[in-house]
Amino acid sequence: MRIVAALGGNALLQRGEAPDAAVQLTHVAQAVHALAPLTADHELIITHGNGPQVGMLAVESANDTTLTAPYPMDVLTAQTQGMIGYWLVRELRNARSGLKVVGVLTDTLIDADDPAFDHPTKFVGPRYPPREAERIADARGWCLRPEGNPGQAMWRRVVASPEPLDILELSAITLLLDAGWVVVAAGGGGVPVTNGGSALGLSGLAGADAVIDKDLTAALLAERLQADALLLLTDVPAIMTGFGTPQARRLIRATPAQLRALPLAQGSMGPKAEAACRFTEHRPGVIAAIGSLTDAAALLTGRAGTLVRATPHDADHPQQVGGARA
Amino acid sequence: MRIVAALGGNALLQRGEAPDAAVQLTHVAQAVHALAPLTADHELIITHGNGPQVGMLAVESANDTTLTAPYPMDVLTAQTQGMIGYWLVRELRNARSGLKVVGVLTDTLIDADDPAFDHPTKFVGPRYPPREAERIADARGWCLRPEGNPGQAMWRRVVASPEPLDILELSAITLLLDAGWVVVAAGGGGVPVTNGGSALGLSGLAGADAVIDKDLTAALLAERLQADALLLLTDVPAIMTGFGTPQARRLIRATPAQLRALPLAQGSMGPKAEAACRFTEHRPGVIAAIGSLTDAAALLTGRAGTLVRATPHDADHPQQVGGARA
Repeated sequence: MRIVAALGGNALLQRGEAPDAAVQLTHVAQAVHALAPLTADHELIITHGNGPQVGMLAVESANDTTLTAPYPMDVLTAQTQGMIGYWLVRELRNARSGLKVVGVLTDTLIDADDPAFDHPTKFVGPRYPPREAERIADARGWCLRPEGNPGQAMWRRVVASPEPLDILELSAITLLLDAGWVVVAAGGGGVPVTNGGSALGLSGLAGADAVIDKDLTAALLAERLQADALLLLTDVPAIMTGFGTPQARRLIRATPAQLRALPLAQGSMGPKAEAACRFTEHRPGVIAAIGSLTDAAALLTGRAGTLVRATPHDADHPQQVGGARA
Repeated sequence: MRIVAALGGNALLQRGEAPDAAVQLTHVAQAVHALAPLTADHELIITHGNGPQVGMLAVESANDTTLTAPYPMDVLTAQTQGMIGYWLVRELRNARSGLKVVGVLTDTLIDADDPAFDHPTKFVGPRYPPREAERIADARGWCLRPEGNPGQAMWRRVVASPEPLDILELSAITLLLDAGWVVVAAGGGGVPVTNGGSALGLSGLAGADAVIDKDLTAALLAERLQADALLLLTDVPAIMTGFGTPQARRLIRATPAQLRALPLAQGSMGPKAEAACRFTEHRPGVIAAIGSLTDAAALLTGRAGTLVRATPHDADHPQQVGGARA
């Protein structure tokens, strides 16, 4: 099988942790421990998020007094592709001696007129209490929004997250995959580039101050690479129905239509569900799975996580079991 | 011909300029304007330095109060590979429509016991007046050294610059080149990794807090890729003899032995001359050229810059002409 695996940026840097290199490397090693075994039997493309990392670099850049303007998100996303890509490639080499693995810098085409530029939704960087958030929004001119349960929410910066339309390195990635390489690509959803902006009168490729959702880019990558499976890996074990209630159940299997009918939180599970639907609908032969990074192999067979495919499963309705029986 | 072109990090960010993204992009566009025409007739591998950029990111990281330890140079070099690689790839695409060009994250193997770790020599980041340099050395525990003419020297941080021994992505780069791709690789000399440190008892690949000289990595890359030419591109037109005197002359041609006999400044022209010698000696069919970025095409034919090759040139001695006749 050809598998695209998407790692959450949050999986590499969790809430409350110092964003030190050593801390993130520990998580990278865990990710690689789960993913490396897949390379024995499958073609593997690994992509990753960058929300915490790109937001941290944005704060550093905004605080850099030698700059007359802080670096835009395209440039900072490119920096995170270098950093996280390097970590993943190096640790995959350490996990399997002789493994052919390479990181490819990747640009993702977006529309300069994407309405997302008027409605920033992508959370990046550190969390702030409300009063500090107000100060930062004022000082930086940034847009911040509350994240989490009402009443206990912390505030984070939000940036525009336009739709991924094309991946410019697709044929290079294909060449490497066909020659037996594991490829790390499209980190942080790919560096967002526009190709001529009707409103702006631009010609040629230009960077955009935005962060593309890495799950949606992963779905596009999987589609264009004609992958057989898309793994959307995070820090929760599956999509849950009745989350937070005594009736909470793991959603074992669903068709895209069934998944779209469920209420899923924007910002966390929403884009993963959307990515799973986009990749599987109209493509009966393929699967998407959403679940815990540490269950990567079990997700492929439905032994863990939530498995999505266009062809009907055994039952007409989403199957659910209690967590204890999962 | 297969050509490896090495761009100076200083060429992308010159003394006295704000290190803004927009400023560096202007220089990237100039570099691409000079290099893109070569892709019509030649296989091209582009590598680049990162001294100013990696030093700037190191200052930002050291000032980041959310970190318990600043990022080491391997991680920051990986960030600069992402950033500068992205700029070069994007602008090459803009310069020649339909050009196949891709950026490859690259690790360079070094020896964990390289004596360079005891004698840091590589200048990185901003320049400081002596008093501020003293304060920074004290506060950060960094090693700083004067750069420039005695009496007028500004101080800069120096980091270890170990010898490049191997390039871990060599076969991926070869695959891409053979398939007609222009490849941007080994930025910042490649991310320095050790493979088991005898003194440290490490096993496997680990990152090192060092910055490899990008000219020496370029020479190794050119050798291993069996390139025909190595272009060492900087902001001066050629190696000059009698530099700073009325007898200053452009060195037009030299053999490695002739070049090694000249007194060349450490830190600027020294590594370029060394790289040119390493690549050409024992390899009669190849050339290395040192000169201005804007003269890239003319360097190949000897119409500009300094041309180095192992086979004797027309004369037994280095040929020199006055700058006006060059």
